[in-house]
Amino acid sequence: MQQEAKRLIHGRNFGFLATLNADGSPQLTPVWVDEQDGHVLVNTAVGRIKERNTRRDPRVSLTVPDWKDPYTYVEIRGRVVEWITGPEAEEHIDKLAIKYTGERFKWRQPGSRRIILKIKPEKVIFG
Amino acid sequence: MQQEAKRLIHGRNFGFLATLNADGSPQLTPVWVDEQDGHVLVNTAVGRIKERNTRRDPRVSLTVPDWKDPYTYVEIRGRVVEWITGPEAEEHIDKLAIKYTGERFKWRQPGSRRIILKIKPEKVIFG
Repeated sequence: MQQEAKRLIHGRNFGFLATLNADGSPQLTPVWVDEQDGHVLVNTAVGRIKERNTRRDPRVSLTVPDWKDPYTYVEIRGRVVEWITGPEAEEHIDKLAIKYTGERFKWRQPGSRRIILKIKPEKVIFG
Repeated sequence: MQQEAKRLIHGRNFGFLATLNADGSPQLTPVWVDEQDGHVLVNTAVGRIKERNTRRDPRVSLTVPDWKDPYTYVEIRGRVVEWITGPEAEEHIDKLAIKYTGERFKWRQPGSRRIILKIKPEKVIFG
């Protein structure tokens, strides 16, 4: 992945993730973003629409703007290639929370489990 | 449309618009947003992917976060019901540019024409 895309992802910038609903229409939410070995990682709660949608159709588009200069952004089109639950996903949400809020994840719901959506980029577009 | 959605749109907040590519995959870009009589208005250049995609499949999703507090956002799912070109679209891009940059639109390309995508909301979700 290009350095500029990594810079935007590793900065404290929110991303916006588009997935596909069952009827093929787009669904869109703000997300925290991470990158590892050229994959983009997003972390959600098990059972949420982002997981359900991507398990049905793994194609996504993610935009990460430079929050200080939104005219600079990257759009990453790709697909979810892995859905990771367990300790790795629980630790990962804390890592993201520390990046974005400065402290460990504090919105955990009782009984809720986390899941990492691992996205393989197929097309990276700069705007 | 709910007051809170209007507040986010009329604030100086960037939106993110998801459209559908020919193969059904999502496409996503930052956009300036406006609202009129319950419709959301986005302004792009004629011939760009946002126009081409929505003419083929008018279903879109638009997220507008509160730029000062991105945990507050609205997702508006709907469809493009009108594509407006001509003087109205040219004036509208200046209105948007003044809202977002404080001055008239300065990125006009020679020969380029503007087009308003008029979106009818079908589902409005707050996050």
